[in-house]
Amino acid sequence: SHDIRLAVIPGDGIGGEVVAEGLKVLNALGLKVETTTYALGAAHYHATGETLHDETLAELRGYDAILLGAIGHPSVPPGVLEREVLLKLRFELDHYVNLRPVKLYPGVETPLAKARPEDIDMIVVREGTESLYAGAGGVMRRGTSQEIATQESFNTAFGVERVVRYAFEKAMTRPRRKLTLVHKTNVLTYAGDLWARVVERVSAEYPEITTDYCHVDAASMFFVTDPQRFDVVVTDNLFGDILTDLGAAVAGGIGLAASGNINPAAPGSDAWAPSMFEPVHGSAPDIAGQDKADPTATILSVAMLLDHLGRTEEAARIEQAVAVDLVERQVDWVSRTTREIGDDITARVTG
Amino acid sequence: SHDIRLAVIPGDGIGGEVVAEGLKVLNALGLKVETTTYALGAAHYHATGETLHDETLAELRGYDAILLGAIGHPSVPPGVLEREVLLKLRFELDHYVNLRPVKLYPGVETPLAKARPEDIDMIVVREGTESLYAGAGGVMRRGTSQEIATQESFNTAFGVERVVRYAFEKAMTRPRRKLTLVHKTNVLTYAGDLWARVVERVSAEYPEITTDYCHVDAASMFFVTDPQRFDVVVTDNLFGDILTDLGAAVAGGIGLAASGNINPAAPGSDAWAPSMFEPVHGSAPDIAGQDKADPTATILSVAMLLDHLGRTEEAARIEQAVAVDLVERQVDWVSRTTREIGDDITARVTG
Ligand SMILES: CC(C)[C@H](C(=O)O)[C@@H](O)C(=O)O
Ligand SMILES: CC(C)[C@H](C(=O)O)[C@@H](O)C(=O)O
Repeated sequence: SHDIRLAVIPGDGIGGEVVAEGLKVLNALGLKVETTTYALGAAHYHATGETLHDETLAELRGYDAILLGAIGHPSVPPGVLEREVLLKLRFELDHYVNLRPVKLYPGVETPLAKARPEDIDMIVVREGTESLYAGAGGVMRRGTSQEIATQESFNTAFGVERVVRYAFEKAMTRPRRKLTLVHKTNVLTYAGDLWARVVERVSAEYPEITTDYCHVDAASMFFVTDPQRFDVVVTDNLFGDILTDLGAAVAGGIGLAASGNINPAAPGSDAWAPSMFEPVHGSAPDIAGQDKADPTATILSVAMLLDHLGRTEEAARIEQAVAVDLVERQVDWVSRTTREIGDDITARVTG
Repeated sequence: SHDIRLAVIPGDGIGGEVVAEGLKVLNALGLKVETTTYALGAAHYHATGETLHDETLAELRGYDAILLGAIGHPSVPPGVLEREVLLKLRFELDHYVNLRPVKLYPGVETPLAKARPEDIDMIVVREGTESLYAGAGGVMRRGTSQEIATQESFNTAFGVERVVRYAFEKAMTRPRRKLTLVHKTNVLTYAGDLWARVVERVSAEYPEITTDYCHVDAASMFFVTDPQRFDVVVTDNLFGDILTDLGAAVAGGIGLAASGNINPAAPGSDAWAPSMFEPVHGSAPDIAGQDKADPTATILSVAMLLDHLGRTEEAARIEQAVAVDLVERQVDWVSRTTREIGDDITARVTG
């Protein structure tokens, strides 16, 4: 029997390369890990015309967790793979928490002139199943001068409350105990009002937590000018998408940004489904196959995966190994391949 | 008779203070300017229960242009003044171009460690009348656990094409002749598809322009890591809102960011209405009345106003005076009040 049964979706572009390094590190921990690879993405789509078969989805439900590389390729029309594979998995497996740490590791170069590691250490709790990501909308008179195209954002008390509660619980585990809601209440008055009321109501149960609010436009400014104002950020799916790429940028680049698509239900309960871990970066087809993508984001995503499965000791070992590697990179800079970075971090995990 | 008949809406918070300095500079140019002040905003709302009366709106249509300070105050529920004054003006006066330069002036400190003035010099052409700003949406079972709240984004070929054409024309006036569409085509598939098709179609008429595309999440990253990739950015109303605050941050702060809400129709035509110029910053009630807000953004907005009215020489004089002031600030830094900054720039405009 195995400690962890893992489904692996390498996906498109650099996905396979970075996932290989994530697995290399995972397999070095002394855990019994069984991995099954699912070839989803552009190649599968071109070969079969399929994106994600119902049977595959049903199978995926049987694993402890999923590790994903990247989904999306210019050879497929925009949105097809994203919607029918990546977002479908997030929605079907009810990954209502998209957890994205924004943390500047010591030694890592940030584009911000004045930021020190202690200034950039937040976690973005991005809602993962609602808002404009629901895919609702339509088009009429397409291609004519009378075309109209709509997109609809769906937001529910159920969906907002559960992710807000998760964010408050997360804030309780952090020394600063601060939670910031980011939205655009002055324009998205219906959805913003719902979010603001839910945060206000739930905050009454958490008197230890300092709660504040920031418009998304101002937040994007503060990510650059005053990142220390943020500890836990809870936000809508689309705003979280934008802010976490920005967060990755200020914390040293998209090559380091990890994420977890979390279904927080108790294992064994009806609501449970495997959570899915992936780097924040995309498939970067321009550098695919060149052994030059940075696998660190995927390796840190593996750490998040282990943490989620209760393997906190192993998770910490990986994070530590990465932290040391990141310091070394600065001190003794040599250009390394994807594989070499994976090897070096693996050596640190085992050594 | 006057050269310029101007409606002035000081608005809330610091609005009045910064507008006073904008007018000080404007009045120093030797033009005959007639200004009429409209007291809209929180105080007017509390006193009368009204936001923007139909008659006021009708009157405003009669001016050459509008100068606005800032609208919004915590004493009024979120969205009321924004929707019923600011956004109502943008929509009713058909300000379909929201023009927002992102430019790092020499001498200005940017939070980005490596950016030089030549790296940050773009102009964001934000659509101003569509998308989620249309205000469509609703709520059902408000306050219950079954609440749902929706927001709807409306996008039309008419609305997209006219702003895209404006952006291509703008790109033609700039040395780099590059236009980047920013959207989220992989998730907002209906609206994104419309935008992408319109840009592709119109680009055929502008073979001199290099056109590319960037997802909004990636764009927010590149604003920080690689701002030189952008020259003219054309984007949706909401994405433009977020990116231009971020742009203000990287270009030295919200105290410097100017904007124009432009109705580009020919004066005298049926579609014409006065354009409206305003700093990108908000009403900042926390520092209101303290004579410490930076009026530079408003002063640069006055330059945009003059440029729009064909007073290019005067506009250039203001921009030049500001540029000199910005260099001096670095060299010989003293803390100045709102009024002192206005005085100094006025002196440079006249001297
Ligand atoms: C690929 C895309 C659909 C996805 C998203 O928008 O969520 C990505 O940008 C991310 O952040 O994981
Ligand atoms: C005040 C608000 C409605 C406005 C907007 O969202 O457009 C502001 O943020 C801006 O950018 O001018």
